[in-house]
Amino acid sequence: MQAISWKGSYLSLLNQTLLPNKVEYIQCRDYRTVAKAIKNLEVRGAPAIGAAAAFAMVLGIRELAVRPELTDEKISVLAKELKKTRPTAINLAWAVDRMLGVVQRYKQDSDLLDKLEQEALLIAEEDKQVNYRLAQYGAQLFTQPTAILTHCNSGTLATVDYGTALGVIRRTWSEGNVSRVFADETRPLLQGSRLTAWELMQDHIPVTLITDSMAGWVMKQRMVQAVIVGADRITSNGDVANKIGTYSVAILAKEHNIPFYVAAPLSTFDFSMRSGDEIPIEERKPEEITFLSGVCVAPDGVPVFNPAFDVTPNSLITGIITEYGVLRTPYEISIEKLKAKKGDM
Amino acid sequence: MQAISWKGSYLSLLNQTLLPNKVEYIQCRDYRTVAKAIKNLEVRGAPAIGAAAAFAMVLGIRELAVRPELTDEKISVLAKELKKTRPTAINLAWAVDRMLGVVQRYKQDSDLLDKLEQEALLIAEEDKQVNYRLAQYGAQLFTQPTAILTHCNSGTLATVDYGTALGVIRRTWSEGNVSRVFADETRPLLQGSRLTAWELMQDHIPVTLITDSMAGWVMKQRMVQAVIVGADRITSNGDVANKIGTYSVAILAKEHNIPFYVAAPLSTFDFSMRSGDEIPIEERKPEEITFLSGVCVAPDGVPVFNPAFDVTPNSLITGIITEYGVLRTPYEISIEKLKAKKGDM
Repeated sequence: MQAISWKGSYLSLLNQTLLPNKVEYIQCRDYRTVAKAIKNLEVRGAPAIGAAAAFAMVLGIRELAVRPELTDEKISVLAKELKKTRPTAINLAWAVDRMLGVVQRYKQDSDLLDKLEQEALLIAEEDKQVNYRLAQYGAQLFTQPTAILTHCNSGTLATVDYGTALGVIRRTWSEGNVSRVFADETRPLLQGSRLTAWELMQDHIPVTLITDSMAGWVMKQRMVQAVIVGADRITSNGDVANKIGTYSVAILAKEHNIPFYVAAPLSTFDFSMRSGDEIPIEERKPEEITFLSGVCVAPDGVPVFNPAFDVTPNSLITGIITEYGVLRTPYEISIEKLKAKKGDM
Repeated sequence: MQAISWKGSYLSLLNQTLLPNKVEYIQCRDYRTVAKAIKNLEVRGAPAIGAAAAFAMVLGIRELAVRPELTDEKISVLAKELKKTRPTAINLAWAVDRMLGVVQRYKQDSDLLDKLEQEALLIAEEDKQVNYRLAQYGAQLFTQPTAILTHCNSGTLATVDYGTALGVIRRTWSEGNVSRVFADETRPLLQGSRLTAWELMQDHIPVTLITDSMAGWVMKQRMVQAVIVGADRITSNGDVANKIGTYSVAILAKEHNIPFYVAAPLSTFDFSMRSGDEIPIEERKPEEITFLSGVCVAPDGVPVFNPAFDVTPNSLITGIITEYGVLRTPYEISIEKLKAKKGDM
């Protein structure tokens, strides 16, 4: 099972909105189909939408290249269209910018299209490798069987493979140090019950599903000893945007003296932003809350607030697990050092 | 719209599981139908199930009385059957015990059945009056327009009329001191979106629906200035059992320096218990979480933890609004004084 795979002439995306009831793939033969899939959360998860956007650039520039002239302006319009599909996860803009870099370097070359395809494949391959490395560092945090709570899905489905937070959990499990995973169902779109519980059951890792509102009570009952979540954007001071509800879980963890870890690759860091206050928070349509399985469950016309993400301040975060090791407070300094690594790449 | 009304020969219950899509009443002509309705949450809310149980006692003893002998043992079996329908809300046991008191006082009298009916009607009438009084005290806490967050439903539908937490909100609104209500949808059974939002919209009180996972973020954005919830059982030290998720909301309120109030009548206090650790917490079936509108949204066979309630410790509670005034910490003392009032009744 892979959320994303490149087939040479098209991008195959596992339609995550239909899971776990139906395993169905979308064949994206043009960039617009990819953009739509990102917008509709058919593909989701910061690293996964980054990789999907890279392949969308390949498809989009191929389309443009059959026309008389492939101008910078047309490519720039394409890049902007892809970037605006989802505003919060930085990996999307990061991948699109990386593809634009290839355009700049090779735009005079006859094999530009091949170069673009190679770069997108490299982005995808790197994401896998990064997750394995990140998971190794994360697993070192655990030396005895631990019950871990996670929110949303940052697994195989949210990445090209293996996952960030779930990658850490997979690796820790393989070392005998996971006793159980508690998966918040993650309203409104239920990535926890539909995706995380599904992934864990396929790997035979013991999982218990709870509603988001139960996380505090589960901690109070001493049923969990650690929290690990993914991230959609991390600013230079260590503030973390992630799925709505993450901020509440972080406060609950602090109240119960439970460590709260974030697992994310370098591509999720936005070094241009000084704090989480600057992160744009996507608001999505009310129907995600008022309709369940196509049935209206709220009074007609009720006003709804539906932010898709929230920001957890650095003060609530015990450590940020990256492919270069676990960052600790003060994050301004540890993230500055990480930024230097980016330069090395 | 009334959740409960006595029709002389039967009890009419508004089927709350069908709201807001369908307004349908259940005619309960025997106690078993009432017991089933309590169990299935067709009638819910601590004060409402107390009143429903009182009328179930009337129906049950009427049924027993047509048989040769109406023994104490048969009545005791009936009372136990009703009490076990839902273990956490104390109002249910309180109302059944009050009806048993009438049986003891009047069991030799020919008009025992009339006396029982009068007592059940009195319980219902008192609940209304109590809510009005409680709401007056609660409204005095607010002197300027305030955005209030509530969890679950403790409104007209959860009581015989007017509501506890929503009663306070209604009264405060009528005095011009509610700017907006944020209603947590309250998973798994969505009492917030289906019932609270519906009640508030009928009263034209501005309401915004959010998922439970958004409460922390809404507080962080300074969108709410107070929390009011109902209660299912309050122990002598002021610990409060209420709908699952309440405990998390209380921690989030503390973290944001937002006052957290509980509104509940005397009948919700369990003076026999010293702390919340003693309260039995009902666990309900997994399907409440794994099915939405009849559609399975989780992997087949996933383990689920589904406690229907949690306990908020007294240290997180700013005040408990009762029909005798607002109780403050130290609750051991203020509740001891309240207990004395019970004696006066």
